[in-house]
Amino acid sequence: MATTGLKDLQTLVSLCKRRGFVFQSSEIYGGLNSCWDYGPLGADFKFNVKMSWWKVMTRRPDIVGLDAAILMHPMVWKASGHIDGFTDPLSDCKSCKTRFRVDQAPLKDGKTICPNCGSKEITEPRNFNLMFKTFMGPVEDAANVVYLRPETAQGIFVNFENVQTSMRKKIPFGIAQIGKSFRNEITPGNFTFRTREFEQMEMQYFVKPGSDMDWFEKWKETRLKHYDTLGFKKNSLRFKEHGPKELAHYARAAFDVQYEFPFGWQELEGIHNRGDFDLTQHSKFSGKKLEYFDEAAKEKFVPYVIETAVGCDRLVLALLCNAYEEETLAGKEGADKEAGDGAADTRIVMRFKPNLAPVQVACLPLSKKPDLQEISNKIRDDLAEDFRADYDESASIGKRYRRQDEIGTPLCLTVDFDTLTDKKVTIRHRDTMTQDRVEMSRLKEYVNEKMKSF
Amino acid sequence: MATTGLKDLQTLVSLCKRRGFVFQSSEIYGGLNSCWDYGPLGADFKFNVKMSWWKVMTRRPDIVGLDAAILMHPMVWKASGHIDGFTDPLSDCKSCKTRFRVDQAPLKDGKTICPNCGSKEITEPRNFNLMFKTFMGPVEDAANVVYLRPETAQGIFVNFENVQTSMRKKIPFGIAQIGKSFRNEITPGNFTFRTREFEQMEMQYFVKPGSDMDWFEKWKETRLKHYDTLGFKKNSLRFKEHGPKELAHYARAAFDVQYEFPFGWQELEGIHNRGDFDLTQHSKFSGKKLEYFDEAAKEKFVPYVIETAVGCDRLVLALLCNAYEEETLAGKEGADKEAGDGAADTRIVMRFKPNLAPVQVACLPLSKKPDLQEISNKIRDDLAEDFRADYDESASIGKRYRRQDEIGTPLCLTVDFDTLTDKKVTIRHRDTMTQDRVEMSRLKEYVNEKMKSF
Repeated sequence: MATTGLKDLQTLVSLCKRRGFVFQSSEIYGGLNSCWDYGPLGADFKFNVKMSWWKVMTRRPDIVGLDAAILMHPMVWKASGHIDGFTDPLSDCKSCKTRFRVDQAPLKDGKTICPNCGSKEITEPRNFNLMFKTFMGPVEDAANVVYLRPETAQGIFVNFENVQTSMRKKIPFGIAQIGKSFRNEITPGNFTFRTREFEQMEMQYFVKPGSDMDWFEKWKETRLKHYDTLGFKKNSLRFKEHGPKELAHYARAAFDVQYEFPFGWQELEGIHNRGDFDLTQHSKFSGKKLEYFDEAAKEKFVPYVIETAVGCDRLVLALLCNAYEEETLAGKEGADKEAGDGAADTRIVMRFKPNLAPVQVACLPLSKKPDLQEISNKIRDDLAEDFRADYDESASIGKRYRRQDEIGTPLCLTVDFDTLTDKKVTIRHRDTMTQDRVEMSRLKEYVNEKMKSF
Repeated sequence: MATTGLKDLQTLVSLCKRRGFVFQSSEIYGGLNSCWDYGPLGADFKFNVKMSWWKVMTRRPDIVGLDAAILMHPMVWKASGHIDGFTDPLSDCKSCKTRFRVDQAPLKDGKTICPNCGSKEITEPRNFNLMFKTFMGPVEDAANVVYLRPETAQGIFVNFENVQTSMRKKIPFGIAQIGKSFRNEITPGNFTFRTREFEQMEMQYFVKPGSDMDWFEKWKETRLKHYDTLGFKKNSLRFKEHGPKELAHYARAAFDVQYEFPFGWQELEGIHNRGDFDLTQHSKFSGKKLEYFDEAAKEKFVPYVIETAVGCDRLVLALLCNAYEEETLAGKEGADKEAGDGAADTRIVMRFKPNLAPVQVACLPLSKKPDLQEISNKIRDDLAEDFRADYDESASIGKRYRRQDEIGTPLCLTVDFDTLTDKKVTIRHRDTMTQDRVEMSRLKEYVNEKMKSF
């Protein structure tokens, strides 16, 4: 018996398409560069990952949610620095007209050359803004330019006062948000890792100045505990504190959570001490004081912000990579029996945590006999009230097990001819391939227990 | 005792801001026309409405989910007809330069005049496309134009084959999706009713031609049952079948679900028989056959589509309007006692269904004594594992009840001095204002029961 993890991204891309996790956007039209659609299983899986974050954040008494619009007033981006500073340096090749990033271009004899044709005749670099620009209203002129937000964070900062007042929150408190952002990246890539349209899960925690580094440390700890619950393998994550020279202009401290993808270590989440940069900037540009009045101390101050910012699509991709395993089953208990039922003796298995798995339990009639179909469908409908439950009747039972392994279904439930008399079903476990015989009357209770147990 | 519903929209807009349901987007910068942000309670409420729809759709064995990107290949919009036909006729006033919709402009002596200055000197109408346009990649030219999707439906049609194949679905089956769409409306308005950025909940159900009108009728019934579970008052909804002349070019039959807003009857949902219009168009423009092979009948066909399309923000707004009540409490059982505890003898109450309420149970210590605070916080944390639970210790208990009424919290739970010895808490019901004394040990069970019972 041998087990290997994911070796190359293409293997995962194929599985994702074959099994309904991720499709290329507009594929029938040749696709749209760097845009991806979540298929049925991917949509559910991503939703479960989002819910895990949302619950761990907003079930705390000190954090509330928010759902701000993607379109915001352009002054927001002036204040945040995105209009002036959110740029990449681009040059044009005078020969082949390719436009490219100068800071990533190849050099020849110490001179930048065109990455497409190799010409040395290139224009001076110009700063290209990464925000997507559009026009609101019927007139396409400068007065009506708006941007698709390049980050969700600013939606939280500009709503700070409305949230604090309406929810009567006392500092320290946080605001959490999940939503789409857009960046016109010059070089997107690596499947869903770097895309122009992406989803963020951000939480900004407002604290009293002076307590900020304590809270920065606390949030590092709290976030790492969440990763422990998601099922990451040992040593697949690493943590990187930024040195003073690596810090963004708004940050007083920064800490990355990184995952080892097949294409290398990459950031999943950043935890930042943003100080009072954002509220001060918005105060300056809006003319509105964004302060907090501390009733106990009778003093006003501009809160500092500790931010935890997760790239949702990246986290989903990391969890897909992490879950992937190929297994040679010779010698594994239970595998021989499954081989006898038509299953291959190797398998691909997605080892999702049961609470994240897109399908939690699959209901399989042993054959297409109407009475077995009827019982299986009824069980599926019952279980579907509380769990994500699937029904499958095609091919041999062994082949169906392999299919469920490949989409990471923790439990398969088989209705056979004995079920008709003993009112029991066989439950087969994804990871161990062992089987239990369980009474139909206590199925919900059994499944519920198993969903929590690994 | 007298009860009145919502009379004007502005009353709701104020409540929504005051209590953290909805804020104007970028309000500190003077707002962005027609853009709104969901505050903490609004975000939770909207999420619950979406979950209600998502569950009722995707827990069925014949419907799967999808989460397609907002940015799609421009040919999608050529095929769908949006590039050529999704337009409003606009004219410019030669005198004051206002641009306006000709089909909604005032007339004088049978001639269109400028709605701003009244001038008769206006340009010939031009068709203005309602899609938001932007550029993907670093070059702003025609080759790189992309659009923000004006509807989620096309994401489902272009993924039809990938979904059907990967999920091995047999017709009839449906694909459900929730997501943002964007329309550059000339005249947005009525709070969150008509906005340029909005969220849709769409389901496209693929059927065999000939069975389409049966399925159209079935989906009308099924959708109406869902509205019954959302808590709409009697006669607040009406249903309208379109006559042959009212049908959109793609529709063979159409049926509206309308709600009576303070500003009149307006559509919440459309149920359409789209025939094979969409798959045929995409087949024609992509050159890819979008057919289904019926194994039993050994025949190929292009499926017909029954669509159910809900405006999510509209449904949320309708439910907010529907829940709003002002009540004069004189004579109401329980009200006198609350008046003795500092509560006003009138109240605003949001009568949300408990499963949709943003806060389901509020934990209130009778006073700020540390032992009462400690027990209340512990109860809140326990309940927060399964419910949306809040904690509030400021002001008199009567005032806190009124505050919870205004955000629609079904249950208030008060920890008092007797709790220390009898291990019981008082549970006060939003609608009846009656109280129960409940043992702390069976609180979860009690709350769980109540959440299902009204």
